[in-house]
Amino acid sequence: MKIAILGGTGSIGEGLAMRWSQKHDIIIGSRKCEKAEDSANKYCTILEECDLTGNISGCINADAVKQADVVVLSIRYEHAISTIESVKPYLKDGHILISIVVPMTRDGYFKYTPPMEGSAAMEFKKVLPEGVKLVSAFHNVSAKKLSDIEEKLKMDVFICGDDEEANQIVSDLVWDIPDLRPLIAGPLEVSSMVESLTPLLVNLAMYNKKKHLGIQCV
Amino acid sequence: MKIAILGGTGSIGEGLAMRWSQKHDIIIGSRKCEKAEDSANKYCTILEECDLTGNISGCINADAVKQADVVVLSIRYEHAISTIESVKPYLKDGHILISIVVPMTRDGYFKYTPPMEGSAAMEFKKVLPEGVKLVSAFHNVSAKKLSDIEEKLKMDVFICGDDEEANQIVSDLVWDIPDLRPLIAGPLEVSSMVESLTPLLVNLAMYNKKKHLGIQCV
Repeated sequence: MKIAILGGTGSIGEGLAMRWSQKHDIIIGSRKCEKAEDSANKYCTILEECDLTGNISGCINADAVKQADVVVLSIRYEHAISTIESVKPYLKDGHILISIVVPMTRDGYFKYTPPMEGSAAMEFKKVLPEGVKLVSAFHNVSAKKLSDIEEKLKMDVFICGDDEEANQIVSDLVWDIPDLRPLIAGPLEVSSMVESLTPLLVNLAMYNKKKHLGIQCV
Repeated sequence: MKIAILGGTGSIGEGLAMRWSQKHDIIIGSRKCEKAEDSANKYCTILEECDLTGNISGCINADAVKQADVVVLSIRYEHAISTIESVKPYLKDGHILISIVVPMTRDGYFKYTPPMEGSAAMEFKKVLPEGVKLVSAFHNVSAKKLSDIEEKLKMDVFICGDDEEANQIVSDLVWDIPDLRPLIAGPLEVSSMVESLTPLLVNLAMYNKKKHLGIQCV
């Protein structure tokens, strides 16, 4: 499968790229081609140091989307809509778009600050072409642990989406990362309950002197 | 410590009453005295069957609050404000009020539906006397597992509140239940992120054929 990771130069993008590259072709997307290429090279070097290889390339966001079956939106909330608009002409019917985006603010502690639609995912749905299958996932996974390729990830990944087939494909992508377990959380409408886990986990780490927390359902 | 559990006739109240009764005096509160007494007797009988004893009594909500150091609001969101209003004359400066309340709706799946204040806790804060210390907790613990006195609870309990001392007392109450671990999630303002875990966990159980899920941070 060809997976484009828009914002793939950030830490959660880094972890997904390196881990998925063991089974899939990864295209790092960025606003600047050089930055994407640099990140792709860096990830390949890290993999080599761990005696692994992976197919990771880099290009501008639009070119990444053109080649991909699955597109991951792994960028700051503030830049999400403009990024979606910039790649919209290349998003086709059946494209799966995974949103990891979280609208949050920091004022001593972190707070979930969704737009009027209720969540980032519900806002994105309004601007996406109808045939694109939007799935919300990976909000409750530690970016730091994900990007440490030798770290075991005994964590659950919560998935929201309105298309059962797309949810299943994203579930399979979660299973592709050893020790992660996918759990369906419901339709896209409940994405707020999943997105808000990111600031919650950061607060829990901060107030309890923990680091890089994830969730296991028991 | 004397702990009043308003709505202590429901399942999460049942679990807290039986488990805390091993270390504290528990007063079950209800709108009807007889119902509260019946529940208290039932819990004592269950404890006896497990070769345990506990000091659990029952009375109307107002009388329960009058005797208590800590008051637990363990009732449906729809009845929360009216219950608070009914016991308000007996809530004194320094009283700790623990809210387990979750505003949620079910329409196939469960959805967190907070009031305009952002969360049940933030709404309650507006109507409570100023000296009452409100703490939001226990939303992410399975009521069923909690009420099964022989069940091991390897779960985390997230706590939100604006008063550090009150948060610490509630943390200690969590530690009083073997295997539960308290984690501070921040001030009361982030209670929405904790309250919404209840519908999230119910959905996760429903969509993934699991039962009575709780959370462990890893």
